[in-house]
Amino acid sequence: MKPLGPIPMGFGSAHGQLQVGGISLSELVARGGRTPLFVYSRAMVAERIAALRAVLPRSISVNYAIKANSFTPLLSAMTKLVDGFDIASGGELAMALNAGMPGERISFAGPGKRDEELRAAITAGVTLNLESESEAERALAIGRQLGAAPRLAIRVNPDFELRGSGMKMAGGAKPFGIDAGRVPALMRKLADEPCEFRGLHIFAGSQSLDAQAIIEAQGKVLALADRLASDAGVPLPVLNMGGGFGIPYFAGDVPLDIGVIGAALNRAVGDLPPTLTRCEFHLELGRYLVGEAGVYLTRIVDRKVSHGEVFLITDGGLHHQLAASGNFGTVVRRNYPAAIANRLNEEPVEVASIVGCLCTPLDRLADKALLPRAEPGDIVAIFCAGAYGASASPSSFLGQGPAAEILV
Amino acid sequence: MKPLGPIPMGFGSAHGQLQVGGISLSELVARGGRTPLFVYSRAMVAERIAALRAVLPRSISVNYAIKANSFTPLLSAMTKLVDGFDIASGGELAMALNAGMPGERISFAGPGKRDEELRAAITAGVTLNLESESEAERALAIGRQLGAAPRLAIRVNPDFELRGSGMKMAGGAKPFGIDAGRVPALMRKLADEPCEFRGLHIFAGSQSLDAQAIIEAQGKVLALADRLASDAGVPLPVLNMGGGFGIPYFAGDVPLDIGVIGAALNRAVGDLPPTLTRCEFHLELGRYLVGEAGVYLTRIVDRKVSHGEVFLITDGGLHHQLAASGNFGTVVRRNYPAAIANRLNEEPVEVASIVGCLCTPLDRLADKALLPRAEPGDIVAIFCAGAYGASASPSSFLGQGPAAEILV
Repeated sequence: MKPLGPIPMGFGSAHGQLQVGGISLSELVARGGRTPLFVYSRAMVAERIAALRAVLPRSISVNYAIKANSFTPLLSAMTKLVDGFDIASGGELAMALNAGMPGERISFAGPGKRDEELRAAITAGVTLNLESESEAERALAIGRQLGAAPRLAIRVNPDFELRGSGMKMAGGAKPFGIDAGRVPALMRKLADEPCEFRGLHIFAGSQSLDAQAIIEAQGKVLALADRLASDAGVPLPVLNMGGGFGIPYFAGDVPLDIGVIGAALNRAVGDLPPTLTRCEFHLELGRYLVGEAGVYLTRIVDRKVSHGEVFLITDGGLHHQLAASGNFGTVVRRNYPAAIANRLNEEPVEVASIVGCLCTPLDRLADKALLPRAEPGDIVAIFCAGAYGASASPSSFLGQGPAAEILV
Repeated sequence: MKPLGPIPMGFGSAHGQLQVGGISLSELVARGGRTPLFVYSRAMVAERIAALRAVLPRSISVNYAIKANSFTPLLSAMTKLVDGFDIASGGELAMALNAGMPGERISFAGPGKRDEELRAAITAGVTLNLESESEAERALAIGRQLGAAPRLAIRVNPDFELRGSGMKMAGGAKPFGIDAGRVPALMRKLADEPCEFRGLHIFAGSQSLDAQAIIEAQGKVLALADRLASDAGVPLPVLNMGGGFGIPYFAGDVPLDIGVIGAALNRAVGDLPPTLTRCEFHLELGRYLVGEAGVYLTRIVDRKVSHGEVFLITDGGLHHQLAASGNFGTVVRRNYPAAIANRLNEEPVEVASIVGCLCTPLDRLADKALLPRAEPGDIVAIFCAGAYGASASPSSFLGQGPAAEILV
């Protein structure tokens, strides 16, 4: 038997049926029109952001990294909840603008920006987080062609990383950003160019549940920003401090203590070095804002026994939930939180594996989990489906196509 | 430095430019209209199938598992090259029928077939590879509703697996097929039902480069089919022996010796047990037919150095080439075959990593490879892109969208 991850707070239950935002499972499936179905909760996202703002210094902006979930209705709701969007492609630029986010509140990071993406971003007044000196040259050239002063920030590849980070985004040789040692020269160069310098972007890692590690990384980000600004002799208008706030996926994971992070940030902004006293601070968060606010619902099509093991075979799978299947960015597969969504009031009585409908052994949504007895027609819920679910999965695989998605 | 995999035979070069089917790189990119671009070679697929048929007994059918690559023009070409299609979903059923493959030459395997998929398949005269006794019940019930006699085969979960198989599809508890011990009872039951019994499907594994392991598994498949037919007292009209033929992806991989497999199959079909003398044999191959006949072309957008390491940043990435990035079904990341497609006549002079344009450290197409010096504008070729490429990757990730695809 293998443990399931912890079900996030905020979901309800009535008569054994899962509820999202007070709406029952059967109503959710009816609204989606079919299974498999992603359901995202507007209220849970809003509550998460409100709880975060309550502990952060008021001077720190909360930006949403839309790569986590760019479902159109969610993006639209987000424009009213956060201070800006962070994007990673020309496609995401169009989504952000279509959602109504003004260009000047959008910043664009990504190591392989094409000329046409730079052009679109500069035209829209978006801040480009420059990933190399040659990208700076291209952006300046396109600005000259357009007769526009591009808004340019520098993404720094710091010499440190967020301890215990889910993904290594910094520290050592990386395709992201410009090595810290070369940043002051570029800052000085940009000061002499026809552009608007928008400061630095320093991203140290992601998906951490360790508040002390995040506090330590934020301290290093502030110290590095101070050092670079001092070396360059150029003041910083903006510092994007990155994100790194994780959510619990697996058994034993403990939610991040944002209270202590907020307290540390309050101390830090109360005691800034002169280089940073007029600086605007941004936090860039994706998964932390939306990951727990989504659930994936998939119907059991077959129940079978093979060599004494029970398999619940669903109409969904890794084509919608690649990360939950353990096939994206993880070395050891562990179970996400999962439940039989129409039997929440029934005792777990058997060990069963929940698999998808794909003809591949990779397609496993929960391995040897202790569950109530489930039958065809029942609905499985896989939680923590609000980030890096639908858009980060190969929906065309085996001719399946995308899941339905609703925001409630 | 890490080695690259072996470039498949069949690609050409002129003036240092990659050629596919005699068409130069620049012409290929012009035909595709943009990068990133998948190019598939009709001739290489046809040659592969001809070489296979030359060594196989003439009585063995070659079926194509379209999950490997269901690009519409390729499927259309395949209808003339193979004897039937194997499909894994209702979506693939539509593709197969649209390509012009007659329903009676299509078989449908997959553990989570929905009622509407069963209905569509039965209506089209497709053979269903039943994955459970309850799926048999559902298929028979739908057949009665439709007034049609469904074509039903049984997928067997064998007690053995293909040694050294890339993916464990058999042996022990599995969501696929019906445990061998329970198969004779279902065979006898189907003999009394208003259906057309279409034999057995026994799939022992995939992606093997070991001819002896495949010969051994095929021997076990034949022996198991004989035993099941004898136990049931029901003759076998068809035996789908599965596939398992692998292609070389990584340094040190040696191409499969199909000559010895063909010789062994010739001996086997010359000495069949009485239960199998009137049986039609099918091989079901996907990757082996198309995997090496495709190449992914992606343009270098930036060249950068971080802490002394060179990164070539492309306009493609794991959103089109999930498996090549090492994030799909692999534990240890190894390099696929890759080259700078417009500098094939230049000496390798530096170690560089080829990465995608996505803002994630997972997006690496070649790690620390020895390459000619490459610059922005150059085109990277990632080989072995003909199977499980475009359709098995999360093309919407980070707002990117699908690659172009052409068949030449």
